[in-house]
Amino acid sequence: MENFIYYSPTKIIFGKDIYKDVGTIVKQYGKKILIHYEGGGELIKKIGIYDNVIEALKKDGIEYKELGGVVPNPKLSLVKEGIKICRDENIDFILAIGGGSVIDSAKAISLGVVSKNDIWDFFSKEIQATETLGVGVVLTIPGAGSEMSESIILSNEELKLKRVCDSEVNFPKFAMLNPEVCKTIPKYLMGCGITDILSHLMERYFSNTKNTELSDALMESAMRVVVKFGKKIINGSNDYNDYSQIMWAATIAHNGMIACGRVADWASHRIEHELSAIYNITHGEGMAIIFLAWMEYIKNEKGEKLNKFFKNVFFVEDLEEGITILKEFFKELGMKTKLKDKGIGEENFEVMAEKALFGSKTIGKFKALSKEDIINILKLAR
Amino acid sequence: MENFIYYSPTKIIFGKDIYKDVGTIVKQYGKKILIHYEGGGELIKKIGIYDNVIEALKKDGIEYKELGGVVPNPKLSLVKEGIKICRDENIDFILAIGGGSVIDSAKAISLGVVSKNDIWDFFSKEIQATETLGVGVVLTIPGAGSEMSESIILSNEELKLKRVCDSEVNFPKFAMLNPEVCKTIPKYLMGCGITDILSHLMERYFSNTKNTELSDALMESAMRVVVKFGKKIINGSNDYNDYSQIMWAATIAHNGMIACGRVADWASHRIEHELSAIYNITHGEGMAIIFLAWMEYIKNEKGEKLNKFFKNVFFVEDLEEGITILKEFFKELGMKTKLKDKGIGEENFEVMAEKALFGSKTIGKFKALSKEDIINILKLAR
Repeated sequence: MENFIYYSPTKIIFGKDIYKDVGTIVKQYGKKILIHYEGGGELIKKIGIYDNVIEALKKDGIEYKELGGVVPNPKLSLVKEGIKICRDENIDFILAIGGGSVIDSAKAISLGVVSKNDIWDFFSKEIQATETLGVGVVLTIPGAGSEMSESIILSNEELKLKRVCDSEVNFPKFAMLNPEVCKTIPKYLMGCGITDILSHLMERYFSNTKNTELSDALMESAMRVVVKFGKKIINGSNDYNDYSQIMWAATIAHNGMIACGRVADWASHRIEHELSAIYNITHGEGMAIIFLAWMEYIKNEKGEKLNKFFKNVFFVEDLEEGITILKEFFKELGMKTKLKDKGIGEENFEVMAEKALFGSKTIGKFKALSKEDIINILKLAR
Repeated sequence: MENFIYYSPTKIIFGKDIYKDVGTIVKQYGKKILIHYEGGGELIKKIGIYDNVIEALKKDGIEYKELGGVVPNPKLSLVKEGIKICRDENIDFILAIGGGSVIDSAKAISLGVVSKNDIWDFFSKEIQATETLGVGVVLTIPGAGSEMSESIILSNEELKLKRVCDSEVNFPKFAMLNPEVCKTIPKYLMGCGITDILSHLMERYFSNTKNTELSDALMESAMRVVVKFGKKIINGSNDYNDYSQIMWAATIAHNGMIACGRVADWASHRIEHELSAIYNITHGEGMAIIFLAWMEYIKNEKGEKLNKFFKNVFFVEDLEEGITILKEFFKELGMKTKLKDKGIGEENFEVMAEKALFGSKTIGKFKALSKEDIINILKLAR
């Protein structure tokens, strides 16, 4: 077991009928806030969250401005617009109503508002984040885990780069999780979310750290639950309790606690980020494609841990059978499992591999991958 | 699954060679601190932690006063002394070096210093805690879980009462967990700690809440690990990695995350608190005695959940066999399993039952226990 620091100060408010309290909670942090959401807010307006939140804010006398326009793989340009609005309007808190993209966009705005530096500097690793304005979350889709994480993932459209900024200051102050919203999520997006949850656990599970019995066992439990309830939901269950399991699993899959003391891999995420930086592909579906190819590529060298994963999560002893079952599970979730099925060719393999390395010789702590390895994995994903 | 709020903002610093950083961390919170520990600090001086901490504090120019004298089941009188010292000396932060008793005593001092009310008022439930001075922890024994909890358990010697104060403000700011300290812990105390860890998980596991698959699975995993490594350690393992599993399990057994969304029982703890408020018995050993009697008493009515526990934690199908195996496990840990083995008679059963109820008609959310039930359980524990 490795030395670690664990810190996760986000307050989680989980359950039914919680939106009525959003004003009471928000006013602990701000008086004039920016509400941030996807597109024109069509989804949150249609399902009623928007009205619920606005009503609760008004009840508590909280002023607000609005900024929609977030797209999947959130963009730097919108973040810059948000920073300008916050400064011009003396905004003192940001409320993200959405999933991972909206939360990440809000976190980036929050960071940029109080900094003299250009916001992209935090992502190009030149400077470390030390303070933020503050973000609260009303979650509309489980998967990304950003509601209780220190990460921001942002796309720079000009440079065609997708980069991460990790910092303790990025944790949202609070996150409201109501599993009832899951009833309104299109099936394909729910499939992407479930794939993403599993991928966050898998990245952490595949580790060379020794003596990780506790975290192995906790993660295997969480993964079994994700698979079981993921299947139930994708096959038509509309039950609040089934959604509850998935929604809470999504948060704890990514807040770090059940994976403390181990070095995680993260190579597949690095590769997928370059994929969705260039192509219009949802992160979850990209993860399904890349993870399967990654497994195929490393299976001979890393069979022992892969076997443990398949045995304890999917109850199969045989590695090949395990990979097949995982592939079938992703397909059941509505994911494509090959790049060609998404209309993606080989034209950018070289550049994606180069960008994924981001100046390093290799990526991946479980299996170190060189540029050639990454290209080979992308070829297996064709 | 029930609605819940989860909040656990303590920063955990876990691993080897971490004490050298204590000054750097403490100075984020205070300039003149109170160091709080058990007795005359014999243990922490003997094992070197005291010297390591003092050296690190001096290096960072942090002033300090000292207050030892904490005993197991920490006392109100010492807390009052600590409050006076902090006020007289303008102390701005408290560093607890010890286990659950020292941490709880420090938390109570921290609460009392900034309050106009008498500190016992927080425990007699008349007032709610809203602010504290702030506490940091250097943990010397795993078990109580107080290093990442919002609870304080304090004994009022005059009233012979042991009471709890739960509040978000009670979370320590940070806790340093170095599994190497476990090598210095006497075997009996380690057995008490391991019993306490399991008891925290069992209290939460035994719940009538439906649809708790995720938290059931996470807790079963954690309990299996506690049993496995508890046995290894008590049977002579002196391995850092084995201690690591137990030390981290102790913290996550009690910080709430793996048990979110379920109503826990806690009756056995309530009964044990009255036991150790009157008699000189270590909390962990008291829990072993009470939990076994509690199981015996409720087994016919609550067999289903008990069966699930024994099947998934101890791998036995039969309930009677399960209780026997649990009893053997506690004995293996060095615990007595009957009150008479600790020299405790029936003389206070009535008064303990009355006090455990604390004005309520019943205690216990899994199985509600009346005064008569509690006395019957104590009789089974004879």
